[in-house]
Amino acid sequence: MAGDGYRVGVLGATGLVGSTILELLAERDFPLAELRPLASERSAGKQIEWGSKSLTVQEVSEDSIQGLDLVLSSAGGSVSAEWTPKIVAAGATVVDNTSYWRMHDDVPLVVSEVNPDALEGHEGIVANPNCSTMQMVVALKPLYDAAGIERLVISTYQAVSGTGKAAIDALRAEARAAVGGSDVPKPEIYPHQIAFNVLAQAGSFADGDDHTDEERKLINETRKILGDPEIRVSATCVRVPVVTGHSEAVNVETREPLEPEQARELLAAAPGVTVVDDPGAGRYPMALEAAGKDDVFVGRIRRDAGNERALDLWVVSDNLRKGAATNAVQLAELLAGRGLLGNQG
Amino acid sequence: MAGDGYRVGVLGATGLVGSTILELLAERDFPLAELRPLASERSAGKQIEWGSKSLTVQEVSEDSIQGLDLVLSSAGGSVSAEWTPKIVAAGATVVDNTSYWRMHDDVPLVVSEVNPDALEGHEGIVANPNCSTMQMVVALKPLYDAAGIERLVISTYQAVSGTGKAAIDALRAEARAAVGGSDVPKPEIYPHQIAFNVLAQAGSFADGDDHTDEERKLINETRKILGDPEIRVSATCVRVPVVTGHSEAVNVETREPLEPEQARELLAAAPGVTVVDDPGAGRYPMALEAAGKDDVFVGRIRRDAGNERALDLWVVSDNLRKGAATNAVQLAELLAGRGLLGNQG
Repeated sequence: MAGDGYRVGVLGATGLVGSTILELLAERDFPLAELRPLASERSAGKQIEWGSKSLTVQEVSEDSIQGLDLVLSSAGGSVSAEWTPKIVAAGATVVDNTSYWRMHDDVPLVVSEVNPDALEGHEGIVANPNCSTMQMVVALKPLYDAAGIERLVISTYQAVSGTGKAAIDALRAEARAAVGGSDVPKPEIYPHQIAFNVLAQAGSFADGDDHTDEERKLINETRKILGDPEIRVSATCVRVPVVTGHSEAVNVETREPLEPEQARELLAAAPGVTVVDDPGAGRYPMALEAAGKDDVFVGRIRRDAGNERALDLWVVSDNLRKGAATNAVQLAELLAGRGLLGNQG
Repeated sequence: MAGDGYRVGVLGATGLVGSTILELLAERDFPLAELRPLASERSAGKQIEWGSKSLTVQEVSEDSIQGLDLVLSSAGGSVSAEWTPKIVAAGATVVDNTSYWRMHDDVPLVVSEVNPDALEGHEGIVANPNCSTMQMVVALKPLYDAAGIERLVISTYQAVSGTGKAAIDALRAEARAAVGGSDVPKPEIYPHQIAFNVLAQAGSFADGDDHTDEERKLINETRKILGDPEIRVSATCVRVPVVTGHSEAVNVETREPLEPEQARELLAAAPGVTVVDDPGAGRYPMALEAAGKDDVFVGRIRRDAGNERALDLWVVSDNLRKGAATNAVQLAELLAGRGLLGNQG
């Protein structure tokens, strides 16, 4: 810590997640001696309003990464692959929001409410999980601790902001054209029109793989975070015409019996979870209500009508906040609180 | 049959499904001696353009139901409860698209490609299944015949046209306001805004039930149509901001081993099914492409990454056509072809 706070870099500061991280650092009053927005050459020199200050975006470079305690990075996999080792070598701890480091054996993949102790002994890089995984494991953790998890069948309803600002613009432009009766613009962000449509593809297909990378993340990251490679996972990741807020239908087969009412009580007591579950009164989690909030919202908690050992859940959260930025800042808080930040000069 | 065709009534002729039935009777060249649109008092007297003709909607009454061979009904459960027995007593066979008669033991629940023989011995009423069930069982039937089905975990992505014209208008009005930056109108059709949102509620909750009636239909009708009460079904029915075309993520655990490639071949050869399954090239079924077509589209056919005995499928169809009107007209064709229509004077 330098002076009265930490010297923090935000890499990818002009993106949706980066901007949300900047907001949250202010909102949560993270102790800052310096806040340095970093980005690619294209964004260098841009001014970012931050509270009463105006911050100048610096191009990420050997020079601009010096003298930092912590870098919160969300600049994409290839940028992370190149710059994360350099930033760590320069003395900072990196909380990385890309998929690049998540499955590395020596990189902890951490959700603040689920496996905070995995931060201990990190070697400079801490990975922030994928959004759809993040919100789900927050809801699953209390059930896992109580009854174990044998199998998950997950279908997602993912918002376009997970893809970035351009996807939000594309959805709005398509919707505007469709309701106005004019020609819907040719899709450039997704392979097909997303407005008034549903795409059975969130993420992309690696050569010859019949699952998207998003589906693989949901399968693999869930096991790593819960520390249980035996959990069996089916995942279908779907993009829906929603701006922000991922929804998920999660079928959970537990190892030990667990009643819906027990699950509801466990979830109501769990950190980071809000139970919204009075469906007869129209109360269940919704993307529109979750957007802008930090919690994971869980509802439709019920016995699977076809399996006495399974529960059905509906899990919704803001994919930019708990699904990305909020957890990154929570990890920064934990790292700082536990004295685990690099370069603590 | 009277003269060169059948005397056919369409009850609920001014609704979305009724209009589609009228279209399909023309499109499929059903042999008609008379076509009589029937509806509630509110719609009586309206003119319906049908090919080069103009038909006058008649109020359903003891008089207007006389002298018919067949009535295709989609006028809602309470209308069906009242009028179906009267229409049968007047001598016509009723193909009913409401949920009212579907689970009655003496009423066959029939999908033309799945269990056409159930039409034999009907007692005047034949039930047309629920849209989300209909499209799914068309895709499941060839797999069921080959390997049996132990368990299904289903998440739906249902279009608003399943609710009726007013729901389409509401979605469009909400979307127009949202993209225009004006206040989104207060929801009147659904409990919440549907534009740019996802609702974990398709259908309604009966008192004390933790599943919607739509979810119960999917569970119960699937077993009745496949004639197998042992199939275990988990169902989460979700409304999405799509105009027409229901999508479904279906996890199928078979009783005998079944490879994805075998499933793909069985589906490619199945009546009423089109396989669209080259996800790496962006080819999978989509609501926007299915709308206006009669087939059930199946893709994303793959091994469940967590269960060697399960497959994941993505099933999409036009909920107004195969999900309702097309099957009703196909049942009419089967009934006529097999000499099973009442009042065959």
